[in-house]
Amino acid sequence: MTDAPMTASASTATAGEVLSRCLTEQAGLFLRALPQAVGEAGARPGALPSVNSPGGAAGTGELLRAVRRIGGALHTFGTLCEPVWAEESRTELRWLLGLLAQEPAFVRRSARLLAALDTLSSTGQGTAPGMLAGHQGAPKARALLERQLTLARTRVHSTVLQELRSARLHALADRMTLLVGEAPLLPVAQARAGEVLPAQAAGAFAALEQAVAALPLQRAATAYQGDALHRLGAAPAVSAGVPAQGRSAGDADGALAADDAPWSRVRILVKRARYALEVCGRPGLELDVLDQVLDRHQEAADAAVTVATAARTPRITPATAYVLGVVHADQRLEVEAARYAFGLQWPKLPHLGWQEWASA
Amino acid sequence: MTDAPMTASASTATAGEVLSRCLTEQAGLFLRALPQAVGEAGARPGALPSVNSPGGAAGTGELLRAVRRIGGALHTFGTLCEPVWAEESRTELRWLLGLLAQEPAFVRRSARLLAALDTLSSTGQGTAPGMLAGHQGAPKARALLERQLTLARTRVHSTVLQELRSARLHALADRMTLLVGEAPLLPVAQARAGEVLPAQAAGAFAALEQAVAALPLQRAATAYQGDALHRLGAAPAVSAGVPAQGRSAGDADGALAADDAPWSRVRILVKRARYALEVCGRPGLELDVLDQVLDRHQEAADAAVTVATAARTPRITPATAYVLGVVHADQRLEVEAARYAFGLQWPKLPHLGWQEWASA
Repeated sequence: MTDAPMTASASTATAGEVLSRCLTEQAGLFLRALPQAVGEAGARPGALPSVNSPGGAAGTGELLRAVRRIGGALHTFGTLCEPVWAEESRTELRWLLGLLAQEPAFVRRSARLLAALDTLSSTGQGTAPGMLAGHQGAPKARALLERQLTLARTRVHSTVLQELRSARLHALADRMTLLVGEAPLLPVAQARAGEVLPAQAAGAFAALEQAVAALPLQRAATAYQGDALHRLGAAPAVSAGVPAQGRSAGDADGALAADDAPWSRVRILVKRARYALEVCGRPGLELDVLDQVLDRHQEAADAAVTVATAARTPRITPATAYVLGVVHADQRLEVEAARYAFGLQWPKLPHLGWQEWASA
Repeated sequence: MTDAPMTASASTATAGEVLSRCLTEQAGLFLRALPQAVGEAGARPGALPSVNSPGGAAGTGELLRAVRRIGGALHTFGTLCEPVWAEESRTELRWLLGLLAQEPAFVRRSARLLAALDTLSSTGQGTAPGMLAGHQGAPKARALLERQLTLARTRVHSTVLQELRSARLHALADRMTLLVGEAPLLPVAQARAGEVLPAQAAGAFAALEQAVAALPLQRAATAYQGDALHRLGAAPAVSAGVPAQGRSAGDADGALAADDAPWSRVRILVKRARYALEVCGRPGLELDVLDQVLDRHQEAADAAVTVATAARTPRITPATAYVLGVVHADQRLEVEAARYAFGLQWPKLPHLGWQEWASA
């Protein structure tokens, strides 16, 4: 369907050619996925797709994929592009990402929380009762979470439907149509790809390594420190330093623990480094694993916030609130487990090798 | 104060001499600690000793220490003793252990749960709020737990006061006085200590290894499996197979997870093996560590039950119940962490070396 990987031609091509090929390919994917995503959104005014039938949102998924890659490439290799165009494009792509990521995030959050409740309510052995089995609060907590998440999803869905018809989206689609034709590059992009692209990708890795160095990895690599559980701040997210791109959006409560912010930041930088490798024709499998771990971190942290918010619903029973407390702690434990997994995985990476091939 | 360790003389002494020396020494400690423990109990009719001033219960602590060691020795080396006497002694010592262990267990449980609440309510940084900071439920949950635990302790205390004046205790004290004079041994105890005692201690180790082999150690050694959290059954404790000795008593609710029972069993067997090593003049430091880990397992499991029970108090607020849910999950996490620690520690033991020295 699309062009062959960049690897073969990268040795002779110019940086502009390689970057342009990536951008136009992704812009093409964007334009192909857009009407499908619009159709999907329109096809389900009330009933939303479940996580079990992700096929129902394939267009949205493809669209998000393209948006993330174009945005990432423009961030890392932006100096090769016409600066005003690159900056405006990134802003508009961030906006669309924030808009479209919310609904799938709610679908995943529902699945995560209801699965957690079900696990806590039964051992899966069929007979032995789980932690919350026999606890009257479990079905009520389940119903409450399901109701609140469905409501939030419906609200987000209306916004998406509205914005998909907006002039802003049409302008972005036009921008992508132009990009399929030609990426607006600067003369510096005439240099050999091997001389320019690895060095710029190295910048993405340096940012990643710097951000990881600031994480409490030593603590995280020792299991059961209780950090994520005990240090959950009630303060609003320190999101000023965290670009919106890549953040699991749709968190109306916004009360992410301050402690989680550096991990959110690393999650974005891992994605950027991944996409930079893709542009250079070196897809990095190790980074995929880290990316997944940090997605889990983010989703569990967001889910914990949702549970805490649900627990503040007026007139719930103490039994319901008790179960929500257990589920909240369970999600924070998942946050801790994700940090632990990251702490084990990161030192195993062959320190990404970027320094070697960037200077090679 | 007491005789030198058994090691030096063990090579020439008979098994009866070595065992007798241990038993009479511990019986002496028992008799010295008993009036002190009675005095301590009488001195605090209402106000109970806090865990911060354990000096207030030094006598009780010493008494429990001696009771555990005599009971353990009679279990492991019982075939050297007059059987009816040994059996009766063990029954009476178990009774006293069950009676006396409850109050200190409540003191420790209070300290554990209130500390957990305080940790969850603040980061210790002074400024940043913790998971439950700003949550109105935290002070109420704290007050509720403190009230219920104090009530339970007071009730147990009255029983202890009553039983310390009972004919049953006097009879046990008489039994210990006779034991200081002479342990009722069988002729088989005339054999060399080195020929008899290690072989019997080996029996205690074999029982321990067998019980550990039945634990899901492989799972426990992988962090964050969520087992202790997810598999907490609401079924009553499977305590039939678990001798009362060594169990952290005072759990009126008795709703230990069935999943915890094999760990409780191993805890008792670790203690028995420890005391067997002491009799043989080979105190085992590695076992001390396992013993502490399993004490932590037991205390966290018991604390979780206390919290679950408190959450069923009528007319508590949802905010209080929510906090109790978090604290419950936190204690179950401690259970899981203790299993993890055990799973890491056990394979590191030089497989206790008992097979070698038992046959040496």
